[in-house]
Amino acid sequence: MGGLTVMRALKARLPNECFVYLGDTARLPYGTKSADTVTRYAVQASAALMRYDIKLLVVACNTASAAALPTLLQTLAPLPVVGVIEPGAEAAVAAAPDGPIAVIATEGTVKGGAYVRAIQAIAPHMPVVQQACPLFVALAEEGMRDGPIAELAAHHYLDPLLATMPRPRGLVLGCTHFPMLKDTIARIAGPDVALVDSAETTAATVEKILQERDLLHTGVMMQSRFLATDAPGRFAHLGEIFLGEPIDPGAVTLVDL
Amino acid sequence: MGGLTVMRALKARLPNECFVYLGDTARLPYGTKSADTVTRYAVQASAALMRYDIKLLVVACNTASAAALPTLLQTLAPLPVVGVIEPGAEAAVAAAPDGPIAVIATEGTVKGGAYVRAIQAIAPHMPVVQQACPLFVALAEEGMRDGPIAELAAHHYLDPLLATMPRPRGLVLGCTHFPMLKDTIARIAGPDVALVDSAETTAATVEKILQERDLLHTGVMMQSRFLATDAPGRFAHLGEIFLGEPIDPGAVTLVDL
Repeated sequence: MGGLTVMRALKARLPNECFVYLGDTARLPYGTKSADTVTRYAVQASAALMRYDIKLLVVACNTASAAALPTLLQTLAPLPVVGVIEPGAEAAVAAAPDGPIAVIATEGTVKGGAYVRAIQAIAPHMPVVQQACPLFVALAEEGMRDGPIAELAAHHYLDPLLATMPRPRGLVLGCTHFPMLKDTIARIAGPDVALVDSAETTAATVEKILQERDLLHTGVMMQSRFLATDAPGRFAHLGEIFLGEPIDPGAVTLVDL
Repeated sequence: MGGLTVMRALKARLPNECFVYLGDTARLPYGTKSADTVTRYAVQASAALMRYDIKLLVVACNTASAAALPTLLQTLAPLPVVGVIEPGAEAAVAAAPDGPIAVIATEGTVKGGAYVRAIQAIAPHMPVVQQACPLFVALAEEGMRDGPIAELAAHHYLDPLLATMPRPRGLVLGCTHFPMLKDTIARIAGPDVALVDSAETTAATVEKILQERDLLHTGVMMQSRFLATDAPGRFAHLGEIFLGEPIDPGAVTLVDL
């Protein structure tokens, strides 16, 4: 579901492109699953998307980007594959060049340490602190974007993280569900901490690759297609909150991976 | 993970039996998935358990019991298959014979209405009110059994439910995760509302069937076995809270369904 926040940024930047979005609703969430299992699922999902003759694949999930990007790049070559971790790391270093940088993500992403590696590949001595925030995923899917429960949960996870010394100056929303809670997170983090949402930077990366390869679609705007592995009606209904616009249930196709 | 609360009750009642527990950790949770998908997963899981020469199958998940019990009974016949919904419904009617009865469960169980049907099959005119509490699953898996976040979430779901008139006298914990939050739920429901946990009644039903069919194991106590479809280490670690005793990571086998 969270990947729709990335699609939202992509659609805003590349309004003429035709998007095919696959939501693995039969097996979500990925955030608590092992890297091996997530990689297997990501390979199956990308194979289903390849049938739509795609020109570029965005892995619009931090957990899948962290676990499966090398495998996907290898399996799908020469297709360009863009994950959300590296654009997120770049944006974080740009937003808080003097650091430290704090990363909030799923259990899987935190455990794998992909953000730490990606940030330190750009800024080798950058201190990075991490915190898994599993409740944020459930809160976003429940539509509890603010209010007392979201507020308390955000304090629970963020207060210890922001109390590390020196105080973090950048906070990466390292799970595509977390932008849904952005206002609550921003209020608790305060104005001196820059919030980093990788969706924007990912969209910029995608645009750059399409430009370089002369693959930008310049014709008329095309209708997005949606694939879901379970409950297409629920996907359309819940997806609307994440995508920020209505999803026609008739445009969601049930697929079996 | 929640099924381990049912196994806990089964082990307490039937300490000599040998249990083989399968946790579908690669695809959990079932609560937000469609009945068709949950049925498919349940059939695959039961096939894996059949290889262990089991004498009875407990479907230790409300969502799977609600969605898949008829299919499992048919597929596995003559093997006895026990779900948690009917024992829960019996316990609810026994605890609150004059009703009304409130049911809290996952989205899937609430939508399917299996508890309403099972309760009204015993007490035809019993008023039943339902509430999906998806956040409770995440709270239980986070180990947040009490404290301010669990308290607020419980108020959020229970206050409107308990305000229905006439006031419910029984409250069914219709998801195997929810017994983890029992103390918090009980405090908010108050002493005049009987909490119903189907695990106990399910264990009693299993004992009765084994007695009737002369299948009780009377020999020495046997070691439980655990199967998980992903991340056996995480299963052992997290499972300890649900089972109420340590799970040896070495006793957890990774299986592919």
